[in-house]
Amino acid sequence: MRLETFENPRPQRDYVIRHEAPEFTSVCPKTGQPDFGTVVIEYVADRLCVELKSLKLYLQSYRNRGIFYEAVTNQILDDLVAALRPRRIRVETHWTPRGGMRSVIIAEQAHPARRRPRSNGR
Amino acid sequence: MRLETFENPRPQRDYVIRHEAPEFTSVCPKTGQPDFGTVVIEYVADRLCVELKSLKLYLQSYRNRGIFYEAVTNQILDDLVAALRPRRIRVETHWTPRGGMRSVIIAEQAHPARRRPRSNGR
Amino acid sequence: MRLETFENPRPQRDYVIRHEAPEFTSVCPKTGQPDFGTVVIEYVADRLCVELKSLKLYLQSYRNRGIFYEAVTNQILDDLVAALRPRRIRVETHWTPRGGMRSVIIAEQAHPARRRPRSNGR
Amino acid sequence: MRLETFENPRPQRDYVIRHEAPEFTSVCPKTGQPDFGTVVIEYVADRLCVELKSLKLYLQSYRNRGIFYEAVTNQILDDLVAALRPRRIRVETHWTPRGGMRSVIIAEQAHPARRRPRSNGR
Amino acid sequence: MRLETFENPRPQRDYVIRHEAPEFTSVCPKTGQPDFGTVVIEYVADRLCVELKSLKLYLQSYRNRGIFYEAVTNQILDDLVAALRPRRIRVETHWTPRGGMRSVIIAEQAHPARRRPRSNGR
Amino acid sequence: MRLETFENPRPQRDYVIRHEAPEFTSVCPKTGQPDFGTVVIEYVADRLCVELKSLKLYLQSYRNRGIFYEAVTNQILDDLVAALRPRRIRVETHWTPRGGMRSVIIAEQAHPARRRPRSNGR
Amino acid sequence: MRLETFENPRPQRDYVIRHEAPEFTSVCPKTGQPDFGTVVIEYVADRLCVELKSLKLYLQSYRNRGIFYEAVTNQILDDLVAALRPRRIRVETHWTPRGGMRSVIIAEQAHPARRRPRSNGR
Amino acid sequence: MRLETFENPRPQRDYVIRHEAPEFTSVCPKTGQPDFGTVVIEYVADRLCVELKSLKLYLQSYRNRGIFYEAVTNQILDDLVAALRPRRIRVETHWTPRGGMRSVIIAEQAHPARRRPRSNGR
Amino acid sequence: MRLETFENPRPQRDYVIRHEAPEFTSVCPKTGQPDFGTVVIEYVADRLCVELKSLKLYLQSYRNRGIFYEAVTNQILDDLVAALRPRRIRVETHWTPRGGMRSVIIAEQAHPARRRPRSNGR
Amino acid sequence: MRLETFENPRPQRDYVIRHEAPEFTSVCPKTGQPDFGTVVIEYVADRLCVELKSLKLYLQSYRNRGIFYEAVTNQILDDLVAALRPRRIRVETHWTPRGGMRSVIIAEQAHPARRRPRSNGR
Repeated sequence: MRLETFENPRPQRDYVIRHEAPEFTSVCPKTGQPDFGTVVIEYVADRLCVELKSLKLYLQSYRNRGIFYEAVTNQILDDLVAALRPRRIRVETHWTPRGGMRSVIIAEQAHPARRRPRSNGR
Repeated sequence: MRLETFENPRPQRDYVIRHEAPEFTSVCPKTGQPDFGTVVIEYVADRLCVELKSLKLYLQSYRNRGIFYEAVTNQILDDLVAALRPRRIRVETHWTPRGGMRSVIIAEQAHPARRRPRSNGR
Repeated sequence: MRLETFENPRPQRDYVIRHEAPEFTSVCPKTGQPDFGTVVIEYVADRLCVELKSLKLYLQSYRNRGIFYEAVTNQILDDLVAALRPRRIRVETHWTPRGGMRSVIIAEQAHPARRRPRSNGR
Repeated sequence: MRLETFENPRPQRDYVIRHEAPEFTSVCPKTGQPDFGTVVIEYVADRLCVELKSLKLYLQSYRNRGIFYEAVTNQILDDLVAALRPRRIRVETHWTPRGGMRSVIIAEQAHPARRRPRSNGR
Repeated sequence: MRLETFENPRPQRDYVIRHEAPEFTSVCPKTGQPDFGTVVIEYVADRLCVELKSLKLYLQSYRNRGIFYEAVTNQILDDLVAALRPRRIRVETHWTPRGGMRSVIIAEQAHPARRRPRSNGR
Repeated sequence: MRLETFENPRPQRDYVIRHEAPEFTSVCPKTGQPDFGTVVIEYVADRLCVELKSLKLYLQSYRNRGIFYEAVTNQILDDLVAALRPRRIRVETHWTPRGGMRSVIIAEQAHPARRRPRSNGR
Repeated sequence: MRLETFENPRPQRDYVIRHEAPEFTSVCPKTGQPDFGTVVIEYVADRLCVELKSLKLYLQSYRNRGIFYEAVTNQILDDLVAALRPRRIRVETHWTPRGGMRSVIIAEQAHPARRRPRSNGR
Repeated sequence: MRLETFENPRPQRDYVIRHEAPEFTSVCPKTGQPDFGTVVIEYVADRLCVELKSLKLYLQSYRNRGIFYEAVTNQILDDLVAALRPRRIRVETHWTPRGGMRSVIIAEQAHPARRRPRSNGR
Repeated sequence: MRLETFENPRPQRDYVIRHEAPEFTSVCPKTGQPDFGTVVIEYVADRLCVELKSLKLYLQSYRNRGIFYEAVTNQILDDLVAALRPRRIRVETHWTPRGGMRSVIIAEQAHPARRRPRSNGR
Repeated sequence: MRLETFENPRPQRDYVIRHEAPEFTSVCPKTGQPDFGTVVIEYVADRLCVELKSLKLYLQSYRNRGIFYEAVTNQILDDLVAALRPRRIRVETHWTPRGGMRSVIIAEQAHPARRRPRSNGR
């Protein structure tokens, strides 16, 4: 499943783009039971933005894959970094309770070299 | 649609003005479907404040225009910067779900040169 | 309408006093329609605190006055600064929707010279 | 009414203890009417922690005393400082509306000399 | 009860793992009455992550033990530090009301030496 | 202040019309203090519906009148009955706290003779 | 403490009057500890309505009395019935947790003989 | 704009189908200003169910039409009755505030003749 | 564990007593894992009321017993019926999620013979 | 996927059992896109109760099946009726928004012949 991109309409400005996908589901590799959660992606684009429909299909590609919370969060982050080369990006996954426990994983990455001077940005 | 302004009643003080417009709607240029969202504008005025009725009409002018989330957010920001020349300003757009995903775009701009010394402001 | 004061019982300590008045009403000078909002006052007293009953009557004195959001917020701030000479003070006004838009105005002022050393404060 | 204490089980670590007492009541010295509020106490212990039952009885001792918002908040803070000698402590009182206004008082105090190095604390 | 661990899948990245366990119960050593609360654990792993099922069983091992709020919070923190050697970790316990009072305890610990340079992390 | 009306577009159907006005204010005749509340009007029209702008102006006409909770609620009901002759109508007033107490008044009236047979209504 | 009354302004109409007093406090006769709760009174007046200030003072008269939940609820109901002779009345008390349990008591009484025909009432 | 239908998969059972469309917008015929609201449709199908995509397009067809609250609610009801011939149906419209007032319109219609015996329904 | 009782202070009136115990815990007999839930008890007393402290201890007696949701709910109901002989009683248990599912069990019982005439009750 | 059952522990009493499964997912047969929703099952057992783990697995069996909202709701109801022969049962499905619309389907069935006399039930 391929993440498609489009040109950032204001590359000269650092601004924030956030997408929340509350309908994420994958499978626990240990028990074979489905996991359910919300994926929050927040980034500052450099030259490219992620196209929403391809992002939805990308997230759906985990539907029947067995993968742990920590791994899927870092994998989504790595794939978005590879596709977008953003100035900075954070991926959060918020999971519904398993065994009475709710889990959250938060990973982020910044590319300072791609960060623009803040003279007229934030 | 023209943004009208009035004189800032306390230009000697840095203070915050925020307007939230939860009834924003435009059209997705790709699918032709209507988009719905909330626009939040927060700024520190320099010499001019935006007149509320003209702001409402300005936002209504997007009702039947096809424009992407990222572009409309930056466009509103650029238009307000051009009309008000504020000390700083931020525009946020919060969109209702499309394809199960909620999106938020946040852009801001500051004019440090217009910023007053903080001796008696914040 | 006069703001009455009483002696700060702990002038040697920087501490925060906040009063929220959710029943504020004034009149829009342009349309003659009533405006409704909440006024939040937060300050660090120097020698004087504002007496609550006189504050209530002071805020009621706007009931039938025509005045804009930006002006009334700054006017309340100026009047409290004149009456209390506080170490710092912030006035927020949160307005109910007009034309589908909710507005918030936030103004503050500090008197660094009156600020005590923080050796035993925060 | 005496505040009792017990030995801090981890004096080598700076950690936060918070107690919220939503059932506080005292009497307004001006009108004789009862006041109701929530008292929030948050502190970093040095050698001593406050025993919960004695704290409850201490707060109940204000039930029929006439005392202003600002004074009672500072008095609770002073009494806890005297009893615990904490590294830092904050007392907040949140009051139910009187005359349509909600009030909050926040006072805090720190003893930097008692603060431990942060090599293995926060 | 032993805390089991697994290898951190991205040790080269500082990222946050949070587990909330709202079904914690222990016993008050003074009154013999059960206490109920929520335990929140948030950490940045170094080489090891805690396995969720063993964490659940570990927390259940307090079910019939008499232990104070302050002690149990620090004990959980110490046990997790011993098992995981995390880069940093925080343990919060949020307790249901006793005698009309709600309590919260927050303890944390950092191992700066294990902290990675932030060149490509947060 | 006169309540204006327009023709009910579906007099052959019993259907419900509700208007909530959260910005109602009048004056307490005993203390001279302003009262604030929400007025909820719900009715089944017969031949006439109330015009919204005239309803707003009608409610504003109480702004500086001294009148008790019970009286104002029944007065609004009587005035709407006189103007609309509805099949049934209910007026509720929900008041912000005075002396720590929140009050609600609910009055209604029905004209069974004007009620249509329910063969094709509810 | 005496409950004062005033003439019902619309005795010819059955309508509902509700007062919620969230600041009620009495004392547990067994433990001597204070109890806190909300008293909700809802009635249809016959000839008399209860005057709000005397109701407030009446409820305050329980502040230092030892009385059980069930007894205080029925006592308030009996006293209001004696003072108002209402067409119907309900008293609810909602108590904050004691020993981890929240209690609610609901008592009501109707005087069918005083109930008016419903030809033009509800 | 045409409402499309499909065969009811269980015509032998009375069951409830509800669709909530929170993104409805039309135009006020008096002021030319846009109105925003939520349309709730709840029905018991007889032989036909409404197809969701055509329902969405049907509701979008009001986007630039001038029509009053009462009229649009009854029109949607009439159009759905004509297209579906349901056993019973209710249409509610919940509108965002105009002039400080929130409005709700609720209309419904039943066809008792089409109602099945309740031997094995509720 | 014995349920203690006291005399109903108003046996001549049908009134409602409700106790909510949000800190209930028992053990799943199949998995050995702890279950957590809220028990709601609502009854109309005949001659006897349940004493709160003994009710708390009675509910705590399930802490380490293996018992299914359906059985524990009916058992609590049977034990309260045996101890109180109430006019009517309902027991609800609301359980935290297990395997992603939340469960609720509601059982009730009435003794019509013990029900008083409603001449002056509800 | 087979629904397993166990003996009702109190067949002589009509009582309510409710299970809410907020993690339901199936596939839209028209678009191939995943649907997400909550399934609520509420029934009065006759001789049999549904075993929770088998219910969870049964619901998971829809994960990759294409089926419409109306059909899946009625299918779950039919399967539970076949397995449990309950006295009465209701199945609700609450779906997350698609095309901006939220849908709910509610189906129920009763077997009056299996309903017990209410002499000692509600």
